[in-house]
Amino acid sequence: MPGTPTTKLKDLKNCIEAQQFDAEMLKELFVVADAMAEVKPGSPESRMLQGFNMATLFYEPSTRTRLSFEGAMGKLGGGILSTESAGEYSSAAKGETLEDTIRTVEGYADIIVLRHFSAGAARRAANAADTPVINAGDGPGQHPTQALLDTYTIYNELGRLENLKIGLVGDLANGRTVRSLASMMTNFADVSFYFIAPDVVKMGQDIKDELDEKGIRWEESEDLLGVASEVDVLYQTRIQKERFGDRLDEYEACRGIYTVDRAVMDAMRRDAIVMHPLPRLDEITTEVDSDPRAAYFRQARNGLYVRMALLKVLLKV
Amino acid sequence: MPGTPTTKLKDLKNCIEAQQFDAEMLKELFVVADAMAEVKPGSPESRMLQGFNMATLFYEPSTRTRLSFEGAMGKLGGGILSTESAGEYSSAAKGETLEDTIRTVEGYADIIVLRHFSAGAARRAANAADTPVINAGDGPGQHPTQALLDTYTIYNELGRLENLKIGLVGDLANGRTVRSLASMMTNFADVSFYFIAPDVVKMGQDIKDELDEKGIRWEESEDLLGVASEVDVLYQTRIQKERFGDRLDEYEACRGIYTVDRAVMDAMRRDAIVMHPLPRLDEITTEVDSDPRAAYFRQARNGLYVRMALLKVLLKV
Amino acid sequence: MPGTPTTKLKDLKNCIEAQQFDAEMLKELFVVADAMAEVKPGSPESRMLQGFNMATLFYEPSTRTRLSFEGAMGKLGGGILSTESAGEYSSAAKGETLEDTIRTVEGYADIIVLRHFSAGAARRAANAADTPVINAGDGPGQHPTQALLDTYTIYNELGRLENLKIGLVGDLANGRTVRSLASMMTNFADVSFYFIAPDVVKMGQDIKDELDEKGIRWEESEDLLGVASEVDVLYQTRIQKERFGDRLDEYEACRGIYTVDRAVMDAMRRDAIVMHPLPRLDEITTEVDSDPRAAYFRQARNGLYVRMALLKVLLKV
Repeated sequence: MPGTPTTKLKDLKNCIEAQQFDAEMLKELFVVADAMAEVKPGSPESRMLQGFNMATLFYEPSTRTRLSFEGAMGKLGGGILSTESAGEYSSAAKGETLEDTIRTVEGYADIIVLRHFSAGAARRAANAADTPVINAGDGPGQHPTQALLDTYTIYNELGRLENLKIGLVGDLANGRTVRSLASMMTNFADVSFYFIAPDVVKMGQDIKDELDEKGIRWEESEDLLGVASEVDVLYQTRIQKERFGDRLDEYEACRGIYTVDRAVMDAMRRDAIVMHPLPRLDEITTEVDSDPRAAYFRQARNGLYVRMALLKVLLKV
Repeated sequence: MPGTPTTKLKDLKNCIEAQQFDAEMLKELFVVADAMAEVKPGSPESRMLQGFNMATLFYEPSTRTRLSFEGAMGKLGGGILSTESAGEYSSAAKGETLEDTIRTVEGYADIIVLRHFSAGAARRAANAADTPVINAGDGPGQHPTQALLDTYTIYNELGRLENLKIGLVGDLANGRTVRSLASMMTNFADVSFYFIAPDVVKMGQDIKDELDEKGIRWEESEDLLGVASEVDVLYQTRIQKERFGDRLDEYEACRGIYTVDRAVMDAMRRDAIVMHPLPRLDEITTEVDSDPRAAYFRQARNGLYVRMALLKVLLKV
Repeated sequence: MPGTPTTKLKDLKNCIEAQQFDAEMLKELFVVADAMAEVKPGSPESRMLQGFNMATLFYEPSTRTRLSFEGAMGKLGGGILSTESAGEYSSAAKGETLEDTIRTVEGYADIIVLRHFSAGAARRAANAADTPVINAGDGPGQHPTQALLDTYTIYNELGRLENLKIGLVGDLANGRTVRSLASMMTNFADVSFYFIAPDVVKMGQDIKDELDEKGIRWEESEDLLGVASEVDVLYQTRIQKERFGDRLDEYEACRGIYTVDRAVMDAMRRDAIVMHPLPRLDEITTEVDSDPRAAYFRQARNGLYVRMALLKVLLKV
């Protein structure tokens, strides 16, 4: 089948953090993802993982991410062992360590998708497990499959990963997706960034330093329309109310400053795209949805293809 | 395969409300359901939906309905993406619209089964989705697959849908199933109804008007034994305690007035059947269960066949 | 396929209690389990149960047991209908009897795995059902698949079920697993037991009487190191905090008296094994995990193979 990896990707044992992937691996993975998008129901490829079990072990709920992984396994004919509330998993409640839970679950499953509330949990799980582990988000830590699907979306929509101008908009301080994307895009040549964020949620200095170190150009801007007219990718994010706690006045002051609406779309180039990790509130108006450059629902579907590709690669099929 | 639809049914895009189905479509669907009942484990037919994913997106729990849909997909080899608590679906909690949720989930699933607490939600979902949507109950609105399985049960048990006398018993005011069945049976010739209900839960005037308009005979009765001796179908329902709120004395006064027991069965014709949407409390005594005319557990199983048929028809397989 | 049963096992209709299995049936089942361990993804055997549905109807949560059954079904290509919270199952909440629930669910599923909080529930379910029922634990009652996987582990690890010295350690009063294992091993010749337990959680007189009746030797001991040097199997259990209620001082006095650590392993024979039903706290130290005689995670995996075998046998495939 087209897309069988031949280089470093074929030795991949786990998917724990975005930094595991270099440019070559990403491109190889995306070729596999392209092939996954072509898998037809009833075809031999759609039974590729038949007889393999995937456990989705979620210690905090994330129905969207869980369904995306389960959809990926379903599309390839594998078995799905699902738990929405591993936090109440009776063994954990009885004091079992994460390592013991993992070593038990790998008795039933050939691959484990872990969502956990504490940073580093996925690494601990991978160290304990003989089966592959995929990190589906570990608290303030990593969420590498989101970074992969974002990068794949750029590749799939624009046909390249080099020579790109990318505008990141919204909550850049807390938004894990934009931070991960910025970091992952440092693998590619001639990428530059614009950061557009309210003052209280500006992009963190650590990412700026990482970009500086790698010689990646970036600038901060308050001019959404101006940036929109320049970029290949406009990545909008939600101001995350839950991060503001009691400071609801600050939240209200932030949201609505930078909205992607018809006027922004009019300013954008014809060949540019709008991305968003979803869910969105009103930071992209629904009038934008019908614009062919609105890529955010395609981006969600790309999560399916990237996760299918990861399952295939990690299970060595 | 026998049962492939050739007329209007083959263009069906969604299953949102009972009124979508006319007599011809119903009969075609039931021929498909008959074929579904013959699908054997391990046969090629049992892999008919392999590579398709069905998401059961339930905003209110209904384990019975959910398991019935998931059983239908399982019998045809498809993937099942299940969520029992979409109400706590983190994206909905963050303020995502139903439309956005649907457009995201259809990225992972080829068909969406929606259970929602508000009337009209299934229509909204179908309008937003490119994939087929099946309404698994939207609050006080519709629950069309229940009406379909009830009608299919009459067809399957009695071999006809015309020339029928049907007695509806119990909570006819709140019982969504009996109201839908009455409405769906107006598609067929020579059907007449008896309504037997305690005063506070009588059949609504809207249904009576609908029947009058279409020239369908109906009468109210207090004589359960007399009606039992006349009808082809005796459809018993549960007095729904949860509808009475604090008025528990009214509830107690209602329940137990009309019970289907051995005496009622003795009055019934040999070729008549007893139906019930389940769950039942004591409105049908357990001594009736072993009577071959007790069709209510077969009725539940028919839900499987009708839902298999719907999945096949909507996925155009 | 090797492992197709030829004797009494082939007539097995349900799996309700450990006492259903005699020596011959156990050995036959374990031959099937051995074959199950050899099933490869993508092989025809891995589609053995394709088109069959299994419902896991859990009235109390037990994610581990549920995932093990679902893993077994997934490995054989069947459909999985899962409910983690049948206790809130709306029909049960509305007053439906267990028997009615079972008769409804068997409309969707070809086999039902029941976990329930009250003893005898599985027997009631099996009496109501036409489809096979597997007891996945009914409160203080039985948990036969645990006893089966424990016995299979001894068979698989040591190559025999006769001529064995078995040390049971820990909470022998409340530990359902050790009580069931003692009872199941009475099927085999030349088995003897050592009981090592804190005073308040000693092995019950009923089991001692059963062993006496069947002429099985047993003795109580306080010398863990001495027993460890004698036995073929050292079966450690967790002191179950939840059994002590407010008497936390008693709990604290109990736990930690008998710990399996490096010193115990040094005393054990080279060909002996350590078992534990999991989850474990600190009654086996993690330094033991890397010892090849530490069989407890293999024991968990054996649960998968035994449950695959049971599904195959009960579904007559």
